Amino acid sequence: MIIVNTIQEIRNYVREQRAQGHTIGFVPSMGYLHEGHQSLLRASKERCQTTVMSIFVNPLQFGPNEDFDRYPRDLERDAKLAEAAGADIIFAPSVDEMYPRGNGQVLTHVDVEEVTLQLCGASRPGHFRGVSTVVSKLFNIVQPDQAFFGMKDAQQVAVLQTMVDDLNIPVEIVPCPIVREPDGLAMSSRNVFLTPEERQQALVLSQALQQAEQLVQAGARDVHQIKEAVRDMIQSQPLADIDYVELLNFRDLSPILSLEQPALLALAVRFGKTRLIDNTVLTID
Amino acid sequence: MIIVNTIQEIRNYVREQRAQGHTIGFVPSMGYLHEGHQSLLRASKERCQTTVMSIFVNPLQFGPNEDFDRYPRDLERDAKLAEAAGADIIFAPSVDEMYPRGNGQVLTHVDVEEVTLQLCGASRPGHFRGVSTVVSKLFNIVQPDQAFFGMKDAQQVAVLQTMVDDLNIPVEIVPCPIVREPDGLAMSSRNVFLTPEERQQALVLSQALQQAEQLVQAGARDVHQIKEAVRDMIQSQPLADIDYVELLNFRDLSPILSLEQPALLALAVRFGKTRLIDNTVLTID
Repeated sequence: MIIVNTIQEIRNYVREQRAQGHTIGFVPSMGYLHEGHQSLLRASKERCQTTVMSIFVNPLQFGPNEDFDRYPRDLERDAKLAEAAGADIIFAPSVDEMYPRGNGQVLTHVDVEEVTLQLCGASRPGHFRGVSTVVSKLFNIVQPDQAFFGMKDAQQVAVLQTMVDDLNIPVEIVPCPIVREPDGLAMSSRNVFLTPEERQQALVLSQALQQAEQLVQAGARDVHQIKEAVRDMIQSQPLADIDYVELLNFRDLSPILSLEQPALLALAVRFGKTRLIDNTVLTID
Repeated sequence: MIIVNTIQEIRNYVREQRAQGHTIGFVPSMGYLHEGHQSLLRASKERCQTTVMSIFVNPLQFGPNEDFDRYPRDLERDAKLAEAAGADIIFAPSVDEMYPRGNGQVLTHVDVEEVTLQLCGASRPGHFRGVSTVVSKLFNIVQPDQAFFGMKDAQQVAVLQTMVDDLNIPVEIVPCPIVREPDGLAMSSRNVFLTPEERQQALVLSQALQQAEQLVQAGARDVHQIKEAVRDMIQSQPLADIDYVELLNFRDLSPILSLEQPALLALAVRFGKTRLIDNTVLTID
């Protein structure tokens, strides 16, 4: 596994691959890889001839009281998992390499409106500005043909698709399905923070989403009713502290009054210090 | 002269040129070309094998009370002038082609801070956000190696250089010298709006800049004194209405107390409805 740390090195590598006529797939990540990331690498491997993974815990997308410092990092372990899933190279820059003005500072931001108002955009001010800015930088550095993102952060996919459309960025965004543990918990680098008890109670998230799917199959169309059923089920777990449960238009994340097809049921819930997100797209057969 | 109106067409053209091993030079413009634009095209022609010019009056960079509607447009004339100066192709998209959400609307903006606080950034709120957003789009559409900008808008050059640096945009910004009429007036598409009397009085702008250069050569170092000398001279013309006269650090446009090297002496002055800008870089021998 090749690991490079500088923009110049990854650009040289990509230029060589391009010169051989290779298409470039790209999986940006914050590292501490799990099956979800590996599924993105496999999707890239299937569609592109060269697969670049970036591993960069981006300070710009963390709020002042968030978990930037304690976010898990293990590049050696990541390199093995990335290689096993088909990555050709890892770009793992330092904060100073990405933000040479120092302290993670930039004077230029990429700002996406409207689709950032709801969900995590509402509870994490500045988060998506940090995401769209760093992804914009990474796209300019790697210049991939396709970039692969997990649907676990459905809002991130919507934000980046909007950014790519609006700025005519020549990269295709490829959303990939959520990968879950056998018991249903959505894979997340943050799952390692859960105590055994929190881990057990966190199963309620995927169960509540499943319950909502069943309600809709049984004919439920009322947005408020569906959200309340999800909230009730989550609140049955004493360690669960709901940040949001929302049901929105899937494409542009605008509010809906009754269930349209497709609609995004998304939630964020804290267990202790750990904030987990999960979602499902509700469709009417 | 090839003129194309769609993003797909210009991308196809650039792809063909690249396949032939050509480097791509790019001159973005709002059209109504003059010698200044032609000098940019010649600079591109000298350094790159293919020269693309865009002509697009960008609604996003005009304020609500500015001259978007009356900005001069003449594509037929522009095509001749562009061809004469060495352009290979003109990309002249419609507003809807660039902003398909309608009404020049985008949800994504590229925002540059600090260097946009002074000068035109202060008197034209939102202007540089419109500039950096559209240039970012045009760079993503054309994907040039080098892009050529006139130093008449020195702040625009500073803003775009900051954007390119911060977002790792793989385009080299090439600043080119101001081109002047024989009597000293800086070339501008807006000069056509001047009445003969305004046109005559507008000569004071380049004269005031020259006077400042002479003051500095004679030993003046006090920023306030130099600015006041420029203001006094401009105000000697009854039709001149000063928007700003500023003397700033040339690179980052930060305020300076005494003359450093190099420093940007920049001014914006209205004559009737027409707002003109001009500047010079003051250096100490």
